[in-house]
Amino acid sequence: MKDIQGGVCAPIGFKAAGIHCGVRKNKSKKDFSLILSDVMCNAASTYTQNKVKGAPIYVTKEHLQNNEAIAVLCNSGNANTCNENGIEIANGMCDLAAKELGIDASDIIIASTGVIGLPLSLEPFETHMHELVESLNENGSSDACAGIMTTDTVQKEYAVEFELDGKTCHIGAIAKGSGMIHPNMATMLAFVTSDVAISKDMLQKVILEVVADTFNMVSVDGDTSTNDMLSVLCNGLAGNSEIDEENDDYQVFKDALMYICTCLSRGIAKDGEGATKLLTCHVKNACTTKDAKIVAKSVITSSLFKAAMFGKDANWGRILCAIGYSEANLDVDKIDVELGSVIGKFIVCQNGRGYPFDEDVALKVLSEDEVEIFIDLHDGEYAATAWGCDLTYDYVKINGDYRT
Amino acid sequence: MKDIQGGVCAPIGFKAAGIHCGVRKNKSKKDFSLILSDVMCNAASTYTQNKVKGAPIYVTKEHLQNNEAIAVLCNSGNANTCNENGIEIANGMCDLAAKELGIDASDIIIASTGVIGLPLSLEPFETHMHELVESLNENGSSDACAGIMTTDTVQKEYAVEFELDGKTCHIGAIAKGSGMIHPNMATMLAFVTSDVAISKDMLQKVILEVVADTFNMVSVDGDTSTNDMLSVLCNGLAGNSEIDEENDDYQVFKDALMYICTCLSRGIAKDGEGATKLLTCHVKNACTTKDAKIVAKSVITSSLFKAAMFGKDANWGRILCAIGYSEANLDVDKIDVELGSVIGKFIVCQNGRGYPFDEDVALKVLSEDEVEIFIDLHDGEYAATAWGCDLTYDYVKINGDYRT
Repeated sequence: MKDIQGGVCAPIGFKAAGIHCGVRKNKSKKDFSLILSDVMCNAASTYTQNKVKGAPIYVTKEHLQNNEAIAVLCNSGNANTCNENGIEIANGMCDLAAKELGIDASDIIIASTGVIGLPLSLEPFETHMHELVESLNENGSSDACAGIMTTDTVQKEYAVEFELDGKTCHIGAIAKGSGMIHPNMATMLAFVTSDVAISKDMLQKVILEVVADTFNMVSVDGDTSTNDMLSVLCNGLAGNSEIDEENDDYQVFKDALMYICTCLSRGIAKDGEGATKLLTCHVKNACTTKDAKIVAKSVITSSLFKAAMFGKDANWGRILCAIGYSEANLDVDKIDVELGSVIGKFIVCQNGRGYPFDEDVALKVLSEDEVEIFIDLHDGEYAATAWGCDLTYDYVKINGDYRT
Repeated sequence: MKDIQGGVCAPIGFKAAGIHCGVRKNKSKKDFSLILSDVMCNAASTYTQNKVKGAPIYVTKEHLQNNEAIAVLCNSGNANTCNENGIEIANGMCDLAAKELGIDASDIIIASTGVIGLPLSLEPFETHMHELVESLNENGSSDACAGIMTTDTVQKEYAVEFELDGKTCHIGAIAKGSGMIHPNMATMLAFVTSDVAISKDMLQKVILEVVADTFNMVSVDGDTSTNDMLSVLCNGLAGNSEIDEENDDYQVFKDALMYICTCLSRGIAKDGEGATKLLTCHVKNACTTKDAKIVAKSVITSSLFKAAMFGKDANWGRILCAIGYSEANLDVDKIDVELGSVIGKFIVCQNGRGYPFDEDVALKVLSEDEVEIFIDLHDGEYAATAWGCDLTYDYVKINGDYRT
């Protein structure tokens, strides 16, 4: 498996585009994106668990009842959520694209991201649908990625190449994240394309397995959005024999998808609103996987710990505190904690007690833009990893006046 | 019932003191406090639910097994938590006070607050115990309050007078809060004194009832501290006939205690680290009390909503979002939301949909330092209130470098 360029257009038979249609006021910001496969795809999605859901979520769920899709349509700047006529607008967007593309509206995955509760008109989409479709091309992934961004500061776009059944296969992806990122799907927008042939059942299975260890282990601010989802489209054009059971090919595809989704998750966490650094928390030797996940997420979610990391302050008491108020089963007196980065790592806590460390070394280690927390619970054999970011002045600034 | 001065010394037979002993480096900051009753008190406490607990928590639990206490001893600047010899130090502090006061060490409630995992020496307490005891006086509540503060910016000190059984009775209290304030006891330090005569059983019952609707409904940052607790001491010197069942007198005492604990809870939330405003979220017509509490706490805890309130931005979509990701049972399409302050209030959401409002009016209302959120779920008859604060630059600043 190797990293390649091309994002969602890296797999065979995918085109993409992203343009400015006017939902966002700033004309230099793209706000309308399309991804299209040459042929029908098997498709699967996971959705936000928020009880308040954006209208596009309902429409996409309806469209994916047959687990097939050929295109993804998405706008940024307006979440089309808590609007009187949200469903009508989401359906209208699909109808416009279907007409222009000569496809069925029910084969479109529709998504929106941005402000909640702001009326959304069809007008900008009507005016610009032709232009969007005309812009579709095999190098369009980066434009499509730009069109789904909100407060993101960097594009999250990845692709890999691997071999299955003697055939060269690809997975590509784009994602937007930033605020409202918290464990429990689907806390961002991520669109994944592949030319692998895989059955609908196996695709549904693999997406759930991968999301549990990737997107659901990311937290930026503890808020779960109303609109976010992950969709995977597989068009089978790589020519491998279809994966229809949990065989070796399934494992190869799962590993590649896990890698791509881990890249997206790390990218989303590192580009959390206002973040200056990526925090990765590794928990090992927990008595169950669930306990390992609870501990890793609790640490990565603590506002006090996140603020300390912004301040490059090795205030490990806050790690112990966050472990302690989690619901995990553990023995406090067995806990070891190390902090590290590319420079090296140092022990801060052994058997639940403070362990002397050099403050100068600590400052250097914590000044890096990727910091790791290693927690050994000495209580079993299960492990988990969670990703988050520091809490900064800019998070407050960005969210103190998001609408204007 | 009327508000009075005097804090924990307002009830008959209580003295208090607070001095600088040297745990905190800044000599102008008091860091060592004592509250003493003339006679033995019936006492009850609730403690942090964090699995990592400060050593003083273990020692106080041991001392309160007989539900009796005569004094409260507390230092700030060091939490005496995750230390090798924490229990020894906490016991040593009690022994020093017991010797100086001529009381039994097991009749002392001991508490510490400050940095976790920093070795704590008995030396400053040995050197200053005599001075602390000498300083005890009937106007010492304010000094004692100062001695338990950490990043608090204002003293939280309240007292009320009421009548029971023809006798004038009092409840007084001091508290420290600020960071690490989150639902589920005991998320701060609060010491409550009273001259009411009440049985141990009734005192234990009333404290649990009151805490559920007050301290457990406060959130500053979602972190639950390792050390915090609420202790109530009742010495019976008011001369009322002892409350030993849930009669009218019990209700009068409960109302007064509820009032005092509501004042403390509001005070703690308003003085949350870096906070510029108090947020009070009222939820009504929920199908159960639990659902009402879950919704109120979810809104008050949302980082995105808290940041919007700092920015005086009526971004009500974040309220709907926080309601939606809570675990409460509700019907999204029935939700009404209003925002208000002393200036007035305005509707932002009706039946789960946006409701037009005047942005100028909204800005004025949200510029006040106490903002209220009114949520009507139209789904039952139960209500709850939660208190929190906005998320500000200063929260990040305070916690980015707490140890130095």
